[in-house]
Amino acid sequence: MNTICPFCSLEHSPVVFASGNGFAAIYNISPILPGHSLVVPYQHVTSLFELTEGEISEFFSFARDITAFLCEAFESEAYDWSLQEGLEAGQSISHLHLHIIPRKQGDLADNGDWYGLLQQSVDPENRDRIRLSETEHAAITERLKGLRNRN
Amino acid sequence: MNTICPFCSLEHSPVVFASGNGFAAIYNISPILPGHSLVVPYQHVTSLFELTEGEISEFFSFARDITAFLCEAFESEAYDWSLQEGLEAGQSISHLHLHIIPRKQGDLADNGDWYGLLQQSVDPENRDRIRLSETEHAAITERLKGLRNRN
Repeated sequence: MNTICPFCSLEHSPVVFASGNGFAAIYNISPILPGHSLVVPYQHVTSLFELTEGEISEFFSFARDITAFLCEAFESEAYDWSLQEGLEAGQSISHLHLHIIPRKQGDLADNGDWYGLLQQSVDPENRDRIRLSETEHAAITERLKGLRNRN
Repeated sequence: MNTICPFCSLEHSPVVFASGNGFAAIYNISPILPGHSLVVPYQHVTSLFELTEGEISEFFSFARDITAFLCEAFESEAYDWSLQEGLEAGQSISHLHLHIIPRKQGDLADNGDWYGLLQQSVDPENRDRIRLSETEHAAITERLKGLRNRN
């Protein structure tokens, strides 16, 4: 555990809306579109290369499950996944995480605009970055937990 | 098999530089940076949701292996992964594919610029899109096959 890493205190945290075997799903505090969430390992893992073959399987199987869940919750049929590893790749938090972004027709002026928005979203210095209040974030998380328990 | 799908004729094709269990690795004809490659299933699969749990495991395990190989071949320590599913998500070819982009310090003016470049690269109408000639593409593929066989 790394005490200054924001993804290292998720065990039993109320911000987790779903848990897999070793992995957590959380709603992004800076969503670029409705539903934009992250899947992260509970352990402080910085790289995909630290995972065992079994963990790779768990990670992406859980991520697919969460993607289906989010697409249903946010009435989407399409999605983008993005994983950045290393500072040179644009990774802003050095704890492995996969971005899942449900997409729907007309959500952006151009389908590919999410690339630029994601860049804004991971840059705390960017003034155009959307950042939810704790109350807004908690409300979405509670809604997702409710839906998840119903499924 | 879909006869008009460019990823449906990869079985025994010379453009494949590495093969996993049901998956192929090919060099992108429109690389946004050196090393930009794709991992695709040999079968015409349009969605991650068509894969079995076992295939999910094979896909991402092979993709990780290819990522390590490309990072070594192109002297990178970082990488971006991007997967787009559905027209609304910016997917240009309706056959499941994962973009793997090795990254290194100073390769782009801003680390996150790859998002915009990827958008150009998947848009055949974009005049700024880089497109390799068949000769250039074959030369890179042969180099990668040589390195792969040496490993």
